[in-house]
Amino acid sequence: MHSHPREKRLDHVFTARTPRVVAARKLLRRRARDERGLFLAEGPQAVREAVRAGAVAELFATAAGLARHPEFAATLASLVTEDALAALAETVAPQGLVAVCRQFDVPLADALSGPPRLVALLADVRDPGNAGTVLRTADAAGAGAVVFAGDAVDPYNGKCVRASAGSLFHVPVGRHRDPAAAVAAARAAGLTVLAATGYGDSDLHDLAAAGGLARPTAWLFGAEAHGLPEGLLAAADARVRVPLYGRAESLNLAAAAAVCLYTSARAQHEARGVGS
Amino acid sequence: MHSHPREKRLDHVFTARTPRVVAARKLLRRRARDERGLFLAEGPQAVREAVRAGAVAELFATAAGLARHPEFAATLASLVTEDALAALAETVAPQGLVAVCRQFDVPLADALSGPPRLVALLADVRDPGNAGTVLRTADAAGAGAVVFAGDAVDPYNGKCVRASAGSLFHVPVGRHRDPAAAVAAARAAGLTVLAATGYGDSDLHDLAAAGGLARPTAWLFGAEAHGLPEGLLAAADARVRVPLYGRAESLNLAAAAAVCLYTSARAQHEARGVGS
Repeated sequence: MHSHPREKRLDHVFTARTPRVVAARKLLRRRARDERGLFLAEGPQAVREAVRAGAVAELFATAAGLARHPEFAATLASLVTEDALAALAETVAPQGLVAVCRQFDVPLADALSGPPRLVALLADVRDPGNAGTVLRTADAAGAGAVVFAGDAVDPYNGKCVRASAGSLFHVPVGRHRDPAAAVAAARAAGLTVLAATGYGDSDLHDLAAAGGLARPTAWLFGAEAHGLPEGLLAAADARVRVPLYGRAESLNLAAAAAVCLYTSARAQHEARGVGS
Repeated sequence: MHSHPREKRLDHVFTARTPRVVAARKLLRRRARDERGLFLAEGPQAVREAVRAGAVAELFATAAGLARHPEFAATLASLVTEDALAALAETVAPQGLVAVCRQFDVPLADALSGPPRLVALLADVRDPGNAGTVLRTADAAGAGAVVFAGDAVDPYNGKCVRASAGSLFHVPVGRHRDPAAAVAAARAAGLTVLAATGYGDSDLHDLAAAGGLARPTAWLFGAEAHGLPEGLLAAADARVRVPLYGRAESLNLAAAAAVCLYTSARAQHEARGVGS
């Protein structure tokens, strides 16, 4: 033995041209993510959640990153140069850490089994920041699943992963090509499907006051620009609008989802509290 | 008369080098906005709201923009080249319209006079997208004022204006250098000040159930990264947390604000409904 194992690892600092770094860098593109079933998570919070979730396939860290976050030294970290780390990261401050993670979405039937008391179903939502924020909010509101349906953003898109602030690793995520099939599956699983739409005939607060939110519920959200298509609106059990008390014409998707999911969470907790 | 007025105007299409365009372009920077009391609003929705609000000092439009939105032809539109418009716009699709608008924020005392039943008070919030989204959500929830306090983003920042989706032109906006003074002014105006914080000792839903949200209320929101400083937390009437039912560690600022503002709006409407 000529060298201490730690020194040996330091001898092998990966650069931006090292094949494993080059291969990981390709995961910045959706096609490579889809083909290989992997994705990237950057920064200490996301890496920590990925480690906890058992999703990490490979961890790249700079020497400075490991010095700042020694808790990751024990895991399978490969030392990389600052340039290599920058090539793998999409933000300016990943704090020296990028993990290659295994995708872990579940079949739709598994996501809806139980069923969970609260589900967020995103139909054709394309904006990764909005989708990731809804994931985070759904997790906070206690949702048991989030479903990405139709022509939706890849939940493993870097911006979505970052906007979810770790919640991608907490909440079961289901995916389905056909939003109508996802709605049908939610109803078959015993969930009431409520479509959130600015033109809904039910006012969210009236529905809450009338006790209409206590049952297990899947909230259906569409893309901000177009909203939900007619067929999906018709397939839902009710079409619900967040009341607009001021002069705004609408809410942004993530804000509307926050109001709907938390109004449901409150109603469900109050309903359970009554019996206790 | 040698030329028809319309043709004459077409003879004078402004380019990116025309002094009035050059001067307007400077408003992309905060310093010029602060000095001149002007700002830019781009795209048909924002321009429409600016016109309604009587805030437009000057409107630049491409020939294509006026063709698509003939409702602006009657106003004081100056024709500009596509290049000139691109130089004034921050988005790729402003649809040929950029307005120079007069700033119209009001003194803090005016924003709080009445007082409004619901106010959003942003302390040191730096992210323009978050601030603009809170403005939009506050408008939707029926807030009577939004206050930007402390080392906060410029409400006339282009990204904030866009994220507000027109609401900047609907809701009275107050500004104050000192968040503590803004909190004191809100309390002096008769508002209950509730600080939104992940570490609050009051649970939002418990507070709502106990009738604690029916009074005129100012919600105090801090920057996501640091939260609210001790002094401001202590100055508020109560420190309120949005309950986290799942595993998320926190909500993003705009989502937390949506939940808080709408829970207040519901409580206030229900309280008024009881008496009617």
